[in-house]
Amino acid sequence: MTAAGPLSGITVVDLTRVLAGPYCTMVLADLGARVIKVEAPGKGDDARHYGPFMDGQSAYFASLNRGKESIALDLKTDSDRAVFERLLAAADVLVENYRPGTMEKLGYGWDDLHRRFPRLIYAAASGFGHSGPFSRRAAYDMVVQAMGGIMSITGQPGGPPTRVGTSIGDITAGLFTTVGVTAALHHRHASGEGMKVDVAMLDCQIAILENAIARYCATGEIPGPLGARHPSIAPFEAFSVRDGSIIIAAGNDALFAKLCDALGRPDLAGNPLFETNEQRCRHVEALKAEIESALAGQTAAAWLETLTAASIPCAPINSVADALSNPQVLARNMVVTLEGAESDRLKIAGNPIKLSAFADPPTRGAAPALDGDRTRILADIEAPNRQ
Amino acid sequence: MTAAGPLSGITVVDLTRVLAGPYCTMVLADLGARVIKVEAPGKGDDARHYGPFMDGQSAYFASLNRGKESIALDLKTDSDRAVFERLLAAADVLVENYRPGTMEKLGYGWDDLHRRFPRLIYAAASGFGHSGPFSRRAAYDMVVQAMGGIMSITGQPGGPPTRVGTSIGDITAGLFTTVGVTAALHHRHASGEGMKVDVAMLDCQIAILENAIARYCATGEIPGPLGARHPSIAPFEAFSVRDGSIIIAAGNDALFAKLCDALGRPDLAGNPLFETNEQRCRHVEALKAEIESALAGQTAAAWLETLTAASIPCAPINSVADALSNPQVLARNMVVTLEGAESDRLKIAGNPIKLSAFADPPTRGAAPALDGDRTRILADIEAPNRQ
Repeated sequence: MTAAGPLSGITVVDLTRVLAGPYCTMVLADLGARVIKVEAPGKGDDARHYGPFMDGQSAYFASLNRGKESIALDLKTDSDRAVFERLLAAADVLVENYRPGTMEKLGYGWDDLHRRFPRLIYAAASGFGHSGPFSRRAAYDMVVQAMGGIMSITGQPGGPPTRVGTSIGDITAGLFTTVGVTAALHHRHASGEGMKVDVAMLDCQIAILENAIARYCATGEIPGPLGARHPSIAPFEAFSVRDGSIIIAAGNDALFAKLCDALGRPDLAGNPLFETNEQRCRHVEALKAEIESALAGQTAAAWLETLTAASIPCAPINSVADALSNPQVLARNMVVTLEGAESDRLKIAGNPIKLSAFADPPTRGAAPALDGDRTRILADIEAPNRQ
Repeated sequence: MTAAGPLSGITVVDLTRVLAGPYCTMVLADLGARVIKVEAPGKGDDARHYGPFMDGQSAYFASLNRGKESIALDLKTDSDRAVFERLLAAADVLVENYRPGTMEKLGYGWDDLHRRFPRLIYAAASGFGHSGPFSRRAAYDMVVQAMGGIMSITGQPGGPPTRVGTSIGDITAGLFTTVGVTAALHHRHASGEGMKVDVAMLDCQIAILENAIARYCATGEIPGPLGARHPSIAPFEAFSVRDGSIIIAAGNDALFAKLCDALGRPDLAGNPLFETNEQRCRHVEALKAEIESALAGQTAAAWLETLTAASIPCAPINSVADALSNPQVLARNMVVTLEGAESDRLKIAGNPIKLSAFADPPTRGAAPALDGDRTRILADIEAPNRQ
């Protein structure tokens, strides 16, 4: 069902819902793992009910759960618990993103799991993590984007704090959880034992603050939003052209000199106001005015051609539609479709981890119907040779 | 030098510079790998020269290169190439983030590497990847943020496209590269062979677009920026209070009812305009006006206390300074200091992957001086028992 990959042969029991956890198990499936979603009977993963819908299925759910299998189990009934435990006995990894405490209430906390299934790797992605004073609180992406500081440095200068347009709180937690799971799989070859991987969305927001932390610690100044400008490199931002705006990123003196030539303004490179990156940052508004006056006569497309020919890093500011039809994105197989889907109108993001040892197929297995793989999953755990 | 972790015993030869590659090898070092930075003599990693500076060292460089070792080698001289090749012979992983083609020019392209060092895992993080029409172009974070679509969905409604305030283009590429490396390490136990991991910053931007792709595919409407509002859940955004604004994220009907009670406006939950999430999204401006009129009388701190007590997901919109002093962030050891640093004023982000099998120390090894570990590194590769 899944593509072959470095995790082929690994079985993941997947209790996750909505985004952070399913993103992790999506990456694991893209790398070849067999992912068995265990869902609540009747309702399933909450994301099955999130719009937009296509062909009667949540497009959101479909894109995050491609290539997974589904079985519906009620973990509060004895018979379904017995099935779940046989799944765990045959699995390598369990991933969940409940609020901390939920697994303990179900009788599946780490101590119990590790005692009964010592090789099992248990990964928990949660809002605030399995320790600390906020541990039991519920979080959503926007809660951790706000609390973790990224909203305070995203937006236009002087304007309101701005959410990153995608759920970076969930997605980075999903990625760090995936790193933890794969590192634990490597380690198990030597130790023979699983471990618990505890990743908090809020922690991940701190982990991606990058130079905002260093700037604050070094200067004591609290970083604010900078629009579309880099905090410490110039020229490195969005510039107006005749029909819109483009990004130009001249990251060093040599690129700045090339840019001045390409703009027909070699004098700018010799201007003492703009001689070093430090000077250019200090006079960034004056520099922008000079560059925009040179850019004003031509279109974005014309400038991007000129600048690209001169090897100056630049980019159009693409819409989502533009990005999905970008020739490089298509050449890299980053827009894939689902096998057996009624239409190929639903595009989903491909796997950005390209590996020499495995093919990168242009389609992915469809997302499962709720409980859609029950028969096969039950047959597998009843087969006598299973582990 | 590094903390013990699931990658203890793994040696990474690190040719990376600036951000995407160093972020990957930082995570590998946080997980216990020994990371040997191979830098250009005299100059070293470009990031050594990026401000801000503290105690004469780049705070930016220090935060990304904690716990690594450094040796300066000129890969264009025979004697240093011989040292480099002995490093590779003893290593498990090579990571680089040059522009595609550079390694081939140096004689260290994948085919050569794999023939000579069959167990070596080779990870390349680049702007556009090692295939496709844009492959050889230079990219910076802002170039891929613009080209990949995320800027078009970040910002205030009707306002200009906005850069995510942190270098999410580099960081996500660093994370996906880390996933590729750890998955390849797991796979090597079975196959005995390394593989090439090829990750493009642009591809990773597509991989994090999340529901913007599904919304576009399902409706044909091109997503735009939404300020601090979720695209398909309400109420789920920033709201004004007496002294600023807070995030409230009531993700379902039950939470919405609780919120209305906490606001002293139980009537709102019964209002047909706001009965379902779909209705609330349709009347999101009217809903916001009602909520803000209820919120206007009290401060952010008072409302956050009230809402938290009622288990309604909410958050202050923290500055970077607030985030770094948040009690949960501190309790999770997400702000760490460097061993042997002259001051503890430089804070760096901790490791968000918390593992039951390993301690999470409150300090990290300092970043290396250029060529600072030469003697030990050379002694290690000359020791007769080394692999």
